[in-house]
Amino acid sequence: MAVGKGELPNFHVIDGVRLGVAKSGIKYQDRKDLVVFELIEGSTCAGVFTKNAFCAAPVVLSKKNLAAGAPRYLLINTGNANAGTGAQGMKDALECCQALSELAGVDSHAILPFSTGVIGEKLPVTAIIDGLPAALTALDESAWADAAEGIMTTDTRPKGASKVIDIEGHQVSISGISKGAGMIMPNMATMLGFVATDANIDQVLLQELLTECANLSFNRITIDGDTSTNDSCMLIATGKSEAPKLERGSAALEQFTVALKAIFMELAQAIVRDGEGATKFVSVVVEGAQSQQEALDVAYTVAHSPLVKTALFACDPNWGRILAAVGRAGLAELDLDAIVIDLDEVCIVRDGGRDPDYTEERGQEVMNREEITIRIQLGRGDSAETIWTTDLSHEYVTINAEYRT
Amino acid sequence: MAVGKGELPNFHVIDGVRLGVAKSGIKYQDRKDLVVFELIEGSTCAGVFTKNAFCAAPVVLSKKNLAAGAPRYLLINTGNANAGTGAQGMKDALECCQALSELAGVDSHAILPFSTGVIGEKLPVTAIIDGLPAALTALDESAWADAAEGIMTTDTRPKGASKVIDIEGHQVSISGISKGAGMIMPNMATMLGFVATDANIDQVLLQELLTECANLSFNRITIDGDTSTNDSCMLIATGKSEAPKLERGSAALEQFTVALKAIFMELAQAIVRDGEGATKFVSVVVEGAQSQQEALDVAYTVAHSPLVKTALFACDPNWGRILAAVGRAGLAELDLDAIVIDLDEVCIVRDGGRDPDYTEERGQEVMNREEITIRIQLGRGDSAETIWTTDLSHEYVTINAEYRT
Repeated sequence: MAVGKGELPNFHVIDGVRLGVAKSGIKYQDRKDLVVFELIEGSTCAGVFTKNAFCAAPVVLSKKNLAAGAPRYLLINTGNANAGTGAQGMKDALECCQALSELAGVDSHAILPFSTGVIGEKLPVTAIIDGLPAALTALDESAWADAAEGIMTTDTRPKGASKVIDIEGHQVSISGISKGAGMIMPNMATMLGFVATDANIDQVLLQELLTECANLSFNRITIDGDTSTNDSCMLIATGKSEAPKLERGSAALEQFTVALKAIFMELAQAIVRDGEGATKFVSVVVEGAQSQQEALDVAYTVAHSPLVKTALFACDPNWGRILAAVGRAGLAELDLDAIVIDLDEVCIVRDGGRDPDYTEERGQEVMNREEITIRIQLGRGDSAETIWTTDLSHEYVTINAEYRT
Repeated sequence: MAVGKGELPNFHVIDGVRLGVAKSGIKYQDRKDLVVFELIEGSTCAGVFTKNAFCAAPVVLSKKNLAAGAPRYLLINTGNANAGTGAQGMKDALECCQALSELAGVDSHAILPFSTGVIGEKLPVTAIIDGLPAALTALDESAWADAAEGIMTTDTRPKGASKVIDIEGHQVSISGISKGAGMIMPNMATMLGFVATDANIDQVLLQELLTECANLSFNRITIDGDTSTNDSCMLIATGKSEAPKLERGSAALEQFTVALKAIFMELAQAIVRDGEGATKFVSVVVEGAQSQQEALDVAYTVAHSPLVKTALFACDPNWGRILAAVGRAGLAELDLDAIVIDLDEVCIVRDGGRDPDYTEERGQEVMNREEITIRIQLGRGDSAETIWTTDLSHEYVTINAEYRT
């Protein structure tokens, strides 16, 4: 199951980035499970990573190598997360990076590893190393769609976004891929995102841009988007476009940022649309909060309520469950009578109870839609936040009760 | 589905308490849906209520009438929660109390109303009022089992606990009933508990006892036990036992408290065992925390992880999901290597990874059990907490996707 069509875009080539995909038999035979990004020398690279205290060995190593500067390759495997693997896990991650560095002729610190899949099992290092030559042979600047497929785990479809903008008469391209899956609730079904551009941006500014874009996108789907042991999102700038370097405070940077945010939003929302067992794509909008945190607290409480989620799955306009979730979000001195809740264009709650104009028929009509916005106006301030989530279906239970078997 | 046998005990009569049950057709025909507790004059009464900001009209009214002192009747209906019903809801609750007060010849402030069932629909006042004479006619000191049935909603079985203890040569009895249901996650499937004793206790001490007992029982099942719009738990002391009055600091009070805690624990755990779709009864024990709050944060994060819950449903010893949940509980400076996690007697995690002695066979053997303890030792302090929860099954989705239909 998945919501919407979710077709891949026509990816624009990013000058300075080549992608190689191989089938290395990590968990399944004959499945694309190894992806290598090759970045041209001089590229800048920024990353955001999971905040889970148990972050996986590849996350620890990628952070370290990123801090050392000058990444030249991203090495991504599916089928095994190399998480909860203790000292052995780090040894294995290092061994894979070492193997790629020798084949590619770069320092091993120039390799950033990423793993996704089952937790707590030893990384099949031999399979990965044996797969590397094929991945390097396959390196091609137009292999984005292949790479989008190569990073999938329980995803039902590949996810990508791509754009070209004109900056001062020169083309700047941005392309990205993402994977998710178990995104109905925060969990360890790793979320990965890789976005590259041929824009020319220094590393410090690139990291700021990535943090801003990730916060508005990957960190707004389900609870906080940072709960897997392996979540990682990378932004690469090759600087090969002929557009001038993007400088802080420039109109060009502003224009680029708008396009970049759109790419991130598309990649993040694609993960929700393909959430495990998802039959609905739900935007939870909270307005009139006293602070951003307050708006997020309410939004997440509603988005994570299993009763709200099962009602969405059942297409049941059970507004009482939404109201109850708002009520337990922990807001001090909440004025019930000030709260207004809408499902798309239909007002369901007003003055502490059901809106007088509400009818089950109108509620039902909205709930039958595949994409629904729950808008909650708190009427106590000026802050607003939006997050995206899905319903909770039988399929979700089936997928997660059978994942390892 | 439910875990364990869950048979009702032989209820000990509480001198001074009579119970009357009627079928008033509130939502279903021919179903016990109205329960009246009659308390002898001079009884003391304590209550704890939901912390949900949207608390239902009957909760607001019960709190108010309890504060006014001298409750004589509890009036409980199922089939309709009278929540999210605005001003009309309060009017309806008052009307029901007024009707009972006239029939019983007491002040209407002496009535405490409790409602459970669907949210946001008008309370069927006429059905309730028409059912009152039958409930009053049925009043009987030995109708506890009937009352336990009368407060059920989606519960699959009635829940009760009862004990007699000897205090200074005199019998003191405690009997209680509870209802829950949708307790896999915090929600609005109201939790109700009614416990009565013939002990002689003043109201202030009784309220302290209730708060203490509820915190260790009803507030330790799922997230915080206080999230429904209607959750209520009452403790009544009739003072009809010949045992001396229970005074603060006495050995007799200590002895009574032990028994009372056991009753509360049994009633609360019975709710978990009958959780919607429950196939497992899971104790989550967190030890070695720096504070109680920290222990609870870890316990709740594990207990609410849908991935942990679906793995429990699948009898899958997926220890990686437990580890990932601990890692995202938000503890600062968590030392991964100090953490030990056991499933019953089998150690699964040690030194940041799978315990070297762990085998899938041993993990599987534990996971096949109906009752499982997940013990997490953080190794950073002296605080410990235990909470109880269930798995997440297809049945849970089915029940909650079809509740209103």
